[in-house]
Amino acid sequence: MKTSEIAELVGGELHGDGQVEILSCASADAADAGQIAFVEKSDTTPESKASCLLVPVDTPVNDSQTVIKTTRPKLAFARVAAKLHPPKPRPAEIHPSAVIAPSATIGSKVFVGAFVCVGENSTIGDGAHLRAGAKVGDNVTVGEGSVLHVNVFVDDDCTIGARVILHSGVVIGADGFGYVREESGGYIKFPQIGTVVIEDDVEIGANTCIDRGALGVTRIGEGTKIDNLVQVGHNVDIGRRCVIAAQTGISGSVTIEDDCVIGGQVGFGDHVRVQSGAVIGSQAGVLPGKIVRPGVWWGTPIQPLEDFKRQNAHVKGIERLKSEVRELKKRLDDTISELKS
Amino acid sequence: MKTSEIAELVGGELHGDGQVEILSCASADAADAGQIAFVEKSDTTPESKASCLLVPVDTPVNDSQTVIKTTRPKLAFARVAAKLHPPKPRPAEIHPSAVIAPSATIGSKVFVGAFVCVGENSTIGDGAHLRAGAKVGDNVTVGEGSVLHVNVFVDDDCTIGARVILHSGVVIGADGFGYVREESGGYIKFPQIGTVVIEDDVEIGANTCIDRGALGVTRIGEGTKIDNLVQVGHNVDIGRRCVIAAQTGISGSVTIEDDCVIGGQVGFGDHVRVQSGAVIGSQAGVLPGKIVRPGVWWGTPIQPLEDFKRQNAHVKGIERLKSEVRELKKRLDDTISELKS
Amino acid sequence: MKTSEIAELVGGELHGDGQVEILSCASADAADAGQIAFVEKSDTTPESKASCLLVPVDTPVNDSQTVIKTTRPKLAFARVAAKLHPPKPRPAEIHPSAVIAPSATIGSKVFVGAFVCVGENSTIGDGAHLRAGAKVGDNVTVGEGSVLHVNVFVDDDCTIGARVILHSGVVIGADGFGYVREESGGYIKFPQIGTVVIEDDVEIGANTCIDRGALGVTRIGEGTKIDNLVQVGHNVDIGRRCVIAAQTGISGSVTIEDDCVIGGQVGFGDHVRVQSGAVIGSQAGVLPGKIVRPGVWWGTPIQPLEDFKRQNAHVKGIERLKSEVRELKKRLDDTISELKS
Repeated sequence: MKTSEIAELVGGELHGDGQVEILSCASADAADAGQIAFVEKSDTTPESKASCLLVPVDTPVNDSQTVIKTTRPKLAFARVAAKLHPPKPRPAEIHPSAVIAPSATIGSKVFVGAFVCVGENSTIGDGAHLRAGAKVGDNVTVGEGSVLHVNVFVDDDCTIGARVILHSGVVIGADGFGYVREESGGYIKFPQIGTVVIEDDVEIGANTCIDRGALGVTRIGEGTKIDNLVQVGHNVDIGRRCVIAAQTGISGSVTIEDDCVIGGQVGFGDHVRVQSGAVIGSQAGVLPGKIVRPGVWWGTPIQPLEDFKRQNAHVKGIERLKSEVRELKKRLDDTISELKS
Repeated sequence: MKTSEIAELVGGELHGDGQVEILSCASADAADAGQIAFVEKSDTTPESKASCLLVPVDTPVNDSQTVIKTTRPKLAFARVAAKLHPPKPRPAEIHPSAVIAPSATIGSKVFVGAFVCVGENSTIGDGAHLRAGAKVGDNVTVGEGSVLHVNVFVDDDCTIGARVILHSGVVIGADGFGYVREESGGYIKFPQIGTVVIEDDVEIGANTCIDRGALGVTRIGEGTKIDNLVQVGHNVDIGRRCVIAAQTGISGSVTIEDDCVIGGQVGFGDHVRVQSGAVIGSQAGVLPGKIVRPGVWWGTPIQPLEDFKRQNAHVKGIERLKSEVRELKKRLDDTISELKS
Repeated sequence: MKTSEIAELVGGELHGDGQVEILSCASADAADAGQIAFVEKSDTTPESKASCLLVPVDTPVNDSQTVIKTTRPKLAFARVAAKLHPPKPRPAEIHPSAVIAPSATIGSKVFVGAFVCVGENSTIGDGAHLRAGAKVGDNVTVGEGSVLHVNVFVDDDCTIGARVILHSGVVIGADGFGYVREESGGYIKFPQIGTVVIEDDVEIGANTCIDRGALGVTRIGEGTKIDNLVQVGHNVDIGRRCVIAAQTGISGSVTIEDDCVIGGQVGFGDHVRVQSGAVIGSQAGVLPGKIVRPGVWWGTPIQPLEDFKRQNAHVKGIERLKSEVRELKKRLDDTISELKS
């Protein structure tokens, strides 16, 4: 792409040469000729060997640099990267080792790698990629343009939307964790016969598990992004455009409404409801049944960030409080003994 | 099943029509004709479109409903579900792509999916299912009726009991995490040459890892249920009928006795012993070597739940305590200056 | 091995018969004839059925035992075990089901199991093992003698050093978790086009995920050992000879310098720097951008272990402090009312 085309793509203001050919993206410090980079904030002329820099509108620049000024350089950079580094193309072919049920429907321009399985009555949408070892059970739908990376598994009756990315080792639709204790002390399985619905434009990180509903549906809403090694229990309902960082665990029947941001290693007890727009810090713990209102939350059990900070300061202050009490006691002792003398 | 048969199966008291044909299970609010649902507690006549409801014995019902009264409706429901929704049947066949060692023994009515491997001298019990991509090393025993879901791996010399369910991505028998520091500062592997024994009726969730013993055995006792993404270290010994929720991590040589309940994201230091019947809350942390007595435990480091709650209340009260101390100080100052005047 | 050879190997002092043939390793309590065991500390003559014991230099022994005295018996034991229990040998053969790109280079004495894939332009070093279902993308290098266990996946452009062990289900090179919010409220992917470099002698536990760099490199330094179910984010840089226990999560752009020891379930915010030699306790939480100096750290947010212990003691002391304040108040009240009377 020429720098002038990039300026147009991102709606930015070009300073310098519009004819420079940009081949790839890099970070500002590692970039070289032919590359584009971005700077989020700079009081001085940014230094970089990049052939073009995306910079904030108020950045001082000099004549020797080719820069594009834009209100949000990082966003602009991501958009340029999407053009310069599109997802890896793979040929429209079905590897001869793949095992595809006769009743399955494979769309056009689908890539099916080695050792892939597609079960009975499943449908793979146009342009989808099923990489080597990916496996799809029976009655599964995979939407257009979705990518199932290596060794992904989507079990029976689950639905994957369009342009979904499932990273390696993801397991969709394993049984949820539900048992009923018997008189004998042993456990009998509560039925785990529901399904999973992953809506369009969701991305799910490596080795993350999304369990099927016990009786209903586990749903991941449109445009939500989930990191690696996350646990999503049965009947969880996650809204649209949520972001959930690595190793967070979400117990059964939790609802997370639209536009929430959840840190890493957060734990949710069952039947929690997180209201739209809430932000929960990493390693927080949310007790079962809790309703989490919009705002920023922290700690175990979670509290508003400001309360959490104040409480932490108080805890750190106990030592001083202790010596204040000791001092008071001494003064009171002295006063009383003076009075008595 | 007819409603009269269901009443007999669960030992409940049928009110209404005993000839209604029930085809499947559902939740009370989503159920429709032909379905059975359950209600755990209701002061009024429960509303549901289900053709039959399992309800507690004291539930008010009306003549138009077919209900079965039983002391534990949820347990009854699970038992009905086990009949109406048995595990997916799979044909007794070995997929031609499977790679089975000549010295392996495959029982009768075994299902072996595509891309399965079974190693030398391994034995697969009657009625077991090895789904696509499941792999079993050398000298492994898989008991009767066990199900290894997609991409499960059981490494050499491990033993899987009867009716065990291993969900997708489970890894049984990887090396434990043990090293000895050398004079050079580097680490040399402590031998990880033990095995894993999974007893009958165990269920293990997706992507959970059970490491082999360093020198001895890692054991999961009969009827124990383990959720997704759990880590079980080398030489851990877990008793019978334990329940362990997602993302909990159990360090080497921990013993968990029978009938314990462990929440999600709990961390155990090594050589902990959890005594029979203990309950440990989610996100708790148990220091190495700790003996956890029966009772309910919470927090990091764990303490009895009551202590934990009281301490939490105290922490929340520091702010007030602080102002009380300030007030005391002022009054003492005033008293002293009055005395001096 | 004869006991005299073992004494020589570990540089220890042999007491007893040097001609005893040792076949395998065991723990002192489980050992039997033909086995060697070790004792880390003993005030009395250790009891064991082992044919030879590795013991500390000051251990009292009797004439009937064959022992080898050495300064570090556990280290000596690990060295003996490395000889007696070498990694499982596998034949130099390529399973006919493996799918190897024509442009890939397979070294000598390489084992390639069933259902393995090796992508275009990838190189597998001499003596490497790719076990069943392991998959290697395009332009990947796997060094000499490395072992990729069952179902491991190494994605395009990543580099694996020599003698590396990747346990089952490991995912190397999945996309990192980076997005930029758009005006619409949705998220666009920040480019994840970097790579992963795993240096020599690294061992990585089952189902652990190492994401590729966004624009640069995610690096695991020489001799570092990582346990199961660990998350390593994009652009993380881990030094040499680090030890990281299970379920720890390391956010993007964290640097962990050489010789650090990290417990299990620790969480790192992004851009943390852990300085060489630091030790971080299990379940600790490190806030974004923190610089962790050498020493022992604990808690969330982390503090020096001594501070953490003192603070914990203070928190436990709040209840007493409260009653002291109440007592003071009463005494002051009494004093004031006496004065007034």
